[in-house]
Amino acid sequence: MANTIAVIGTLDTKGDEFLFVKNEIENRGHRALVVNVGVMGEPGFEPDVPAEKVAVAAGSSLKILREKSDRGLAVETMSKGIVKVIVDLYDANRIQAVIGMGGSAGTDIATAAMRALPLGVPKVMVSTHAPMDTRPYVRTKDIVMVPPIVDVAGINRISSLAYANAVGAVIGMVETSAPQIEDKPLLAASMFGNTTPVVNRCRSILEQKGYEVLIFHQVGTPETLESLAADGYISGVMDITTTEWADQVTGGVLSGGPNRYDIVSQKGIPQVIVPGCIDMANFSARKDVPPKYDDRLFYQWASNVTLMRTNPAENATIGQILAQKANMSSGPAAFFLPLQGFSMMDAPGKEFWWPEANQAFFDAVKQHLKPEIPVYEMDCNINDDEFADAVADKMLEFLHS
Amino acid sequence: MANTIAVIGTLDTKGDEFLFVKNEIENRGHRALVVNVGVMGEPGFEPDVPAEKVAVAAGSSLKILREKSDRGLAVETMSKGIVKVIVDLYDANRIQAVIGMGGSAGTDIATAAMRALPLGVPKVMVSTHAPMDTRPYVRTKDIVMVPPIVDVAGINRISSLAYANAVGAVIGMVETSAPQIEDKPLLAASMFGNTTPVVNRCRSILEQKGYEVLIFHQVGTPETLESLAADGYISGVMDITTTEWADQVTGGVLSGGPNRYDIVSQKGIPQVIVPGCIDMANFSARKDVPPKYDDRLFYQWASNVTLMRTNPAENATIGQILAQKANMSSGPAAFFLPLQGFSMMDAPGKEFWWPEANQAFFDAVKQHLKPEIPVYEMDCNINDDEFADAVADKMLEFLHS
Repeated sequence: MANTIAVIGTLDTKGDEFLFVKNEIENRGHRALVVNVGVMGEPGFEPDVPAEKVAVAAGSSLKILREKSDRGLAVETMSKGIVKVIVDLYDANRIQAVIGMGGSAGTDIATAAMRALPLGVPKVMVSTHAPMDTRPYVRTKDIVMVPPIVDVAGINRISSLAYANAVGAVIGMVETSAPQIEDKPLLAASMFGNTTPVVNRCRSILEQKGYEVLIFHQVGTPETLESLAADGYISGVMDITTTEWADQVTGGVLSGGPNRYDIVSQKGIPQVIVPGCIDMANFSARKDVPPKYDDRLFYQWASNVTLMRTNPAENATIGQILAQKANMSSGPAAFFLPLQGFSMMDAPGKEFWWPEANQAFFDAVKQHLKPEIPVYEMDCNINDDEFADAVADKMLEFLHS
Repeated sequence: MANTIAVIGTLDTKGDEFLFVKNEIENRGHRALVVNVGVMGEPGFEPDVPAEKVAVAAGSSLKILREKSDRGLAVETMSKGIVKVIVDLYDANRIQAVIGMGGSAGTDIATAAMRALPLGVPKVMVSTHAPMDTRPYVRTKDIVMVPPIVDVAGINRISSLAYANAVGAVIGMVETSAPQIEDKPLLAASMFGNTTPVVNRCRSILEQKGYEVLIFHQVGTPETLESLAADGYISGVMDITTTEWADQVTGGVLSGGPNRYDIVSQKGIPQVIVPGCIDMANFSARKDVPPKYDDRLFYQWASNVTLMRTNPAENATIGQILAQKANMSSGPAAFFLPLQGFSMMDAPGKEFWWPEANQAFFDAVKQHLKPEIPVYEMDCNINDDEFADAVADKMLEFLHS
């Protein structure tokens, strides 16, 4: 069955290149819907959606953009407009895939639209930035970056191979049926090296009950889980490792930002919350720790990983934040507090064991949490089996209710 | 027509995932040839090429690798072995495409093999590193990186979308015919902002004569042209902008390394050599310039681009290097020397005009160059039309002889 592939490009400077792509798509029995995002000149051929419409979708116009002649503004405006145009086309089932080609500006614009589409919708970007840091473009989405080897300028023996293969890729993807797999509900669990035992045990219990548990390493990139939660993929969250808040509060290097996992509460996804590894904030080398922390307790985990023990004030702040965020949830939530420590290192006799600091966290949670949310205090370490069993059981209870 | 797609993976830890990929390929009417690169455990299913064969191809064995239990050594060994295995399969026409999946180790191994294949051969890598800096994996090749969104571990609603789409991409690419384009011979020209006029004029002249001119920005990445030259794509090189040698000699940030473009001489590709922009070495911010250069002449090109005027000794060194490298060429070569300066800034009355420094370059070239290689001194600036015309004419003469 023929599909329609949106082609996003600057037809003023790369008309020949995009005509080549359009023809390749049509020669292989699919349809191309060409959207022009070139601001300055006239298009090399007639697009299906003119650049003016993209500019207007962003509340601007080509006339304004040409008069201002500001490259940054043009890219920003066309990026905003293309998101609206492409999402509308997709929602109306007028396109089933997207391909783009360009340098840095073209990549900025086309990938903005791609990131607005659901996972699984084919997204192919021929970009001079493919063999570089792709993070600003791909972010948490399944955008496939294709290196053009040479500039996306002209149709020669090398660039034509890249263009044709990119068209091949997007066609092959759009002809792919949804995989037939056993469709288990997905759960998320947050993990750190120091909470591996508890997370693995919870995972094992839930998987035996027919769930699939995705592990999210807490390295300051909460966007991946947030994006999946926003798209409705996640049925429950075991936020066992809330350590990114320790970095947010102290200025550590693995902060998840002030809105970490807010989407979980906003969507009312069932969640179990545990203060995993909030005893430790992460810095890179010891010399990179701010001098104001010089009197603190440190542990050199690796040459470039310095752990700092959080203090009672910081732990109280984290407790307040977690409680207030949980209060906003429209779904079920519960706190589990391990009285014998928040990590392998925060256990009686271990490097970071500091009961007073932990107590400050417990007090803050209980002070700020609304009474409907239960708090379970357990006299064990976070990595003890009975603790994991209790967390997993509560998650199951939420999922079954 | 059915094609055979090589599937590279660690079947000991990801057997289910690779079986899924193999089945997807076969369900769509193509063949999978599975190569196991997992060292430690037994494969989840029987591969077509066992890991032992890959280890032996690298002069090692699974027994040795298991005994040493050194992850770095295992990755290095299997990377070396897989290159040999895959290149042999490709040369014997037993595979027409490659797909791999993995984390950092799996990506290291599979992309090593992909980089050893010619441009145009479909290469798809499902990698947790796709949304990061892909440079170490892609380098100068057309490797298509697919983000798995979650870890390549397990077959769930999210990962299965990525696996299936990646298979779709490699199948779509392998079903792509070589593009029918006007097959013009390719030339390369090295460019910098400061040599744009001369390069553009040469390009225009050569394109009117039926050649396609690829522009290579001199930003310290000579590998792209070198890779294309090694693969036989390049018919001639106009090395008009040899500025990377100024950075190599002074320790600037855009050095092309000590072997820049050596392949051009080794392959005997016709070349015209010009000292474009060797008057300037590039540093980032002014504060990042080594203190030993404090008495030099600088020009602040942008906040993070500091240009330093090279001195007579440095220019003499560059002249000697360029002459000695040209002497090794098995093909035709010529030098063009613009007596009125090497860049827009190195012209009478301009910031970097220093005739004595330029003379040191001229003297060194003439002293070290073998007499068979002609040197043309022209009393004009590098960006003057008559200079560009002479360079282009010589290139044409080489190409026609």
